[in-house]
Amino acid sequence: MLKAIIVGASGYAGAKLAYYLTKHPNIELVALTVSENSLDAGKLISDRFLYPQLKGVVDLPLIATADYSSLVKDIDIVFLATEHSVSHDIAPFFLENGCTVFDLSGAFRVNSPSFYTQFYGFEHQHQQWLDKAVYGLAEWNFDAIKNAQLIAVPGCYPTASQLPLKPLIEEDLLDKRQWPVINAVSGVSGAGRKPSTNNLFCEVSLHAYGIFTHRHQPEIATHLGQEVIFTPHLGCFKDGIHATITCQVKEGVSEEDILTALNKYYDDKPLVRVYQKQWPALKSVIGLPYCDIGFVLKGQHLILISVEDNLLKGAAAQAVQCMNIRFGFDEITALL
Amino acid sequence: MLKAIIVGASGYAGAKLAYYLTKHPNIELVALTVSENSLDAGKLISDRFLYPQLKGVVDLPLIATADYSSLVKDIDIVFLATEHSVSHDIAPFFLENGCTVFDLSGAFRVNSPSFYTQFYGFEHQHQQWLDKAVYGLAEWNFDAIKNAQLIAVPGCYPTASQLPLKPLIEEDLLDKRQWPVINAVSGVSGAGRKPSTNNLFCEVSLHAYGIFTHRHQPEIATHLGQEVIFTPHLGCFKDGIHATITCQVKEGVSEEDILTALNKYYDDKPLVRVYQKQWPALKSVIGLPYCDIGFVLKGQHLILISVEDNLLKGAAAQAVQCMNIRFGFDEITALL
Amino acid sequence: MLKAIIVGASGYAGAKLAYYLTKHPNIELVALTVSENSLDAGKLISDRFLYPQLKGVVDLPLIATADYSSLVKDIDIVFLATEHSVSHDIAPFFLENGCTVFDLSGAFRVNSPSFYTQFYGFEHQHQQWLDKAVYGLAEWNFDAIKNAQLIAVPGCYPTASQLPLKPLIEEDLLDKRQWPVINAVSGVSGAGRKPSTNNLFCEVSLHAYGIFTHRHQPEIATHLGQEVIFTPHLGCFKDGIHATITCQVKEGVSEEDILTALNKYYDDKPLVRVYQKQWPALKSVIGLPYCDIGFVLKGQHLILISVEDNLLKGAAAQAVQCMNIRFGFDEITALL
Amino acid sequence: MLKAIIVGASGYAGAKLAYYLTKHPNIELVALTVSENSLDAGKLISDRFLYPQLKGVVDLPLIATADYSSLVKDIDIVFLATEHSVSHDIAPFFLENGCTVFDLSGAFRVNSPSFYTQFYGFEHQHQQWLDKAVYGLAEWNFDAIKNAQLIAVPGCYPTASQLPLKPLIEEDLLDKRQWPVINAVSGVSGAGRKPSTNNLFCEVSLHAYGIFTHRHQPEIATHLGQEVIFTPHLGCFKDGIHATITCQVKEGVSEEDILTALNKYYDDKPLVRVYQKQWPALKSVIGLPYCDIGFVLKGQHLILISVEDNLLKGAAAQAVQCMNIRFGFDEITALL
Repeated sequence: MLKAIIVGASGYAGAKLAYYLTKHPNIELVALTVSENSLDAGKLISDRFLYPQLKGVVDLPLIATADYSSLVKDIDIVFLATEHSVSHDIAPFFLENGCTVFDLSGAFRVNSPSFYTQFYGFEHQHQQWLDKAVYGLAEWNFDAIKNAQLIAVPGCYPTASQLPLKPLIEEDLLDKRQWPVINAVSGVSGAGRKPSTNNLFCEVSLHAYGIFTHRHQPEIATHLGQEVIFTPHLGCFKDGIHATITCQVKEGVSEEDILTALNKYYDDKPLVRVYQKQWPALKSVIGLPYCDIGFVLKGQHLILISVEDNLLKGAAAQAVQCMNIRFGFDEITALL
Repeated sequence: MLKAIIVGASGYAGAKLAYYLTKHPNIELVALTVSENSLDAGKLISDRFLYPQLKGVVDLPLIATADYSSLVKDIDIVFLATEHSVSHDIAPFFLENGCTVFDLSGAFRVNSPSFYTQFYGFEHQHQQWLDKAVYGLAEWNFDAIKNAQLIAVPGCYPTASQLPLKPLIEEDLLDKRQWPVINAVSGVSGAGRKPSTNNLFCEVSLHAYGIFTHRHQPEIATHLGQEVIFTPHLGCFKDGIHATITCQVKEGVSEEDILTALNKYYDDKPLVRVYQKQWPALKSVIGLPYCDIGFVLKGQHLILISVEDNLLKGAAAQAVQCMNIRFGFDEITALL
Repeated sequence: MLKAIIVGASGYAGAKLAYYLTKHPNIELVALTVSENSLDAGKLISDRFLYPQLKGVVDLPLIATADYSSLVKDIDIVFLATEHSVSHDIAPFFLENGCTVFDLSGAFRVNSPSFYTQFYGFEHQHQQWLDKAVYGLAEWNFDAIKNAQLIAVPGCYPTASQLPLKPLIEEDLLDKRQWPVINAVSGVSGAGRKPSTNNLFCEVSLHAYGIFTHRHQPEIATHLGQEVIFTPHLGCFKDGIHATITCQVKEGVSEEDILTALNKYYDDKPLVRVYQKQWPALKSVIGLPYCDIGFVLKGQHLILISVEDNLLKGAAAQAVQCMNIRFGFDEITALL
Repeated sequence: MLKAIIVGASGYAGAKLAYYLTKHPNIELVALTVSENSLDAGKLISDRFLYPQLKGVVDLPLIATADYSSLVKDIDIVFLATEHSVSHDIAPFFLENGCTVFDLSGAFRVNSPSFYTQFYGFEHQHQQWLDKAVYGLAEWNFDAIKNAQLIAVPGCYPTASQLPLKPLIEEDLLDKRQWPVINAVSGVSGAGRKPSTNNLFCEVSLHAYGIFTHRHQPEIATHLGQEVIFTPHLGCFKDGIHATITCQVKEGVSEEDILTALNKYYDDKPLVRVYQKQWPALKSVIGLPYCDIGFVLKGQHLILISVEDNLLKGAAAQAVQCMNIRFGFDEITALL
């Protein structure tokens, strides 16, 4: 049994992680932590006002701490479900103590000195760990993940955006001069559990946000090696991401070419489901660890549709998938 | 033209008031105020992040102030869409300066010294105004409202609860030993626009709250002259209140007796709609100033159903209805 | 491995059953059937327009048939997720061929000749099977279920209503002259997957229905041995039932008496979770096989709150729980 | 007073029309009709199971008829809120009897013989009326509408798509080689009130539909004079359309150029609201007759956002707006 902790366990992704890790036959979940001044400190994660669905399933307390020195001795695995700046600051401590770290924040996703100053507004202090970090897009970086100590789990939008596009880029089917137009709609849980007017029940209403300025645009472009126009939206639903990607294929590319490309990379991947002559609706994946992909081609115009649960394949499930890969477990253990 | 202001205009009821008063042919809406430290201070009420639906309709700024001395000189009417304690503190100032005050809070709804200590946790300082305040249940206190300077507009639950029950009590049709059981479900807007975990889009889920402890229970019981068991719930919808009232009629009371009683009091009332051999659904009243009432009788068991928009007949529309009554306008001016 | 089929597999409860039975280590799910003229005939249950979430998980076709003679030879267990009249007509065939039948309809829930003429509008033809049928309220009829060939799984409202009330009745804590008032709100999935104006996205709105006439009222009263006033409502959400039960306890009954009674019957039951000094919200149980119960006592007035997923503890999960009991598997196998 | 009827009054757009026309000071609404075999025939439009919100406001019965010969004598204006084929068949009868017809269907929107065979699957029989029909995009065809007898009110998607794009095309700001990518999400009311599995409360889930095949694509392209890629989606909300339009401007075009173009055409238009350095959310327009437009420019990449209530500016309100223009009333009469 490997021992794991979740740092930042009171958030939506943290609670999903707690559920998966409790179900995992090879993992002992030893502690859930929250920040020192969290109002949830001391409560059980299954508290009536936190995650009552976990009552009787995961009844661990949320420990408020900023000092992990006693915890770190006993643990093998750390999941960081924390803000970017917190992950940035504490990941090295765990790494230097020999833990394997799965970071769900953006703190180690792009190995570029300028990326963090430009898009996150801080100077990255840990270039040595940026160099070693592996981007946890599980279907694409299997071998690197297997050998990594620090896995930077991709954001929810980048996962939904890259999984349909990467096979086409890899097989050189796209007319790269035309930037793919990614319109994605996220459920409100993507905004987290911190109260703000924007996320109130009575305020939510479909709208675009972060037009041309969202941090996931450069994350997508960097890892795709292709510029994109990315427009995120907030939808009127709790969970899930739906991405509609409009792009242009090279002359002569057929429907079959595209399906062949998708199948080449995903046929043996348990968490990507490719649709033939159809495309998925959001509900196909809610509560499930899949990313579903479909498409329609007309002339050189290609519409790709991808859907995922933003908290699962877009966060917690992909993190656990990476952990399964890293430690040689079946990729879907605890997930299906 | 009478001049009116709205104090606390950034909340949900305040914004509805702003809309009605702007449409009102006899009212000039001269100012909207918010508390001194409001984050919304200075913005237009029709700001993209406040009430963009009002863009081009009501484009007044939200003025942050705690000092109304300059404002008070020019105005005839004040709507207080403020917290109980704020209304309690500032209503006398406006009243002493000759304004007519419509208070949407609970600060003047019950003329009893002990009521506020017991249920609101503060010592009421203005007994002389409590004595003069008229309870603005418009269909029942028409004459008193006509002559009042301070109208305490009823809460949303009390309106939905009292309108169906009062005719039956007035006509002595109920077996009063059996306390009516009022189960009511409110939309989330009833909880206001202040961010809190409870009102987040991802947290809202049908549940009971304030069981045996909600302040509206004594308000209902006092004004009905009948004890009740009142259980409020938060529903998964934005606006509206749905009340299901289970009670017992006296032996021999017929369906016709009940319909006759309801019609006696509401036939000539434009904002109460009584259903015959049917009962309303919540959607009947959303965005509208009505309270709809229906019922079913079996033996001595009576189920009354009432629905209203919590922000309209349960707040802003009833306040404007009271103003229309008070100043001799047609009762539904600006409302329909 | 026991072999099972689901009759009526295209409905919401049928699809949940298909999922559970596929996950069950002791069950082989051999066929899914639908009625002869079903539009879904021939499609996979995981079809894009049926239950795409099951893609890759349960990919069985929906077989249209009214003739089960070839199927019946090989199977041990039949789940009937069919209309009352269909269950009534075909259950005997399976029973006479030696199958164990779990019927999710109301066709065998009450052993009384007059019940079906009065509340279901048909003459029951199978008194011998009514005599043998066991009511599958799993926490209460464990021993009878263990030995039954025909298990009539309770309706969703009756489960949510009886589980909180039965311990109090059993321990004689209620003042039985006061009929408990059960106000329950169901998600729209309770109305099934057959298109009708009432269930359209744009038509759904909180409302009461079947006041004094719903079939679940006599089912509840019969199995409780206590008359009740039961008012069902349709809520603005997909899944779940929330019941608010107002009743009167005998003089002298304390909060501790009630908690003791609930714990006495449910402490060792894995699918009932009792709350102490709290009560559950609907979200606690969505997607989960639990019934959660809480309560508040004031004087002799008692409010009980219970919640369940109407398709799970209110249908499919309880059916599988009964099967687990019947065949000696762990009660929660495939459910948690 | 002009006399008007609504044909197809039981649908969502029909009911909105009934409300507006009842409020209109210059119109007498004389009849509401439905198709001969409608289940709603004979009911009041304000029936509990139709549009109870209209109770006491519009209490006209729905008359089932296919023979309008008696009706036609007395009326000046006909609104057709009917299916394309019905409008196609009956519009000429009303026109030949001297009525002015506002058709909300697609039957007369494009003056091209091949359009209907190709996209609607029928041979258009009324070329003479196609020739005379005026496309009712109110802000753009004011003069033509003033003199028309047959006004083809645009579809909901085409209105939301054309209003932001037309000023830019008119001012020649777009790089027309790059087809604008229009991603639009519609509320479920756009699919009508006819029961179908797709529109059930439990089935609705964000998804794209009609990719490359929706009839509104050629309607948009024809009236814009610009090819577009149009991808419609069904959203998880009742009313409204949100369009995100990604396009490319010519080199050197600035933010100010775009704002100037939008203001040039809409500054004096009461039902189009242009946002400066901001863009609207869907809620800005729900229940209101506006189309709101905002945009962001980065380099030559332009994102336009437009929102409208699909049943209002996308149907009933625009039809009434056209009527107001046609008969010389203030453009917003009955609408605001």
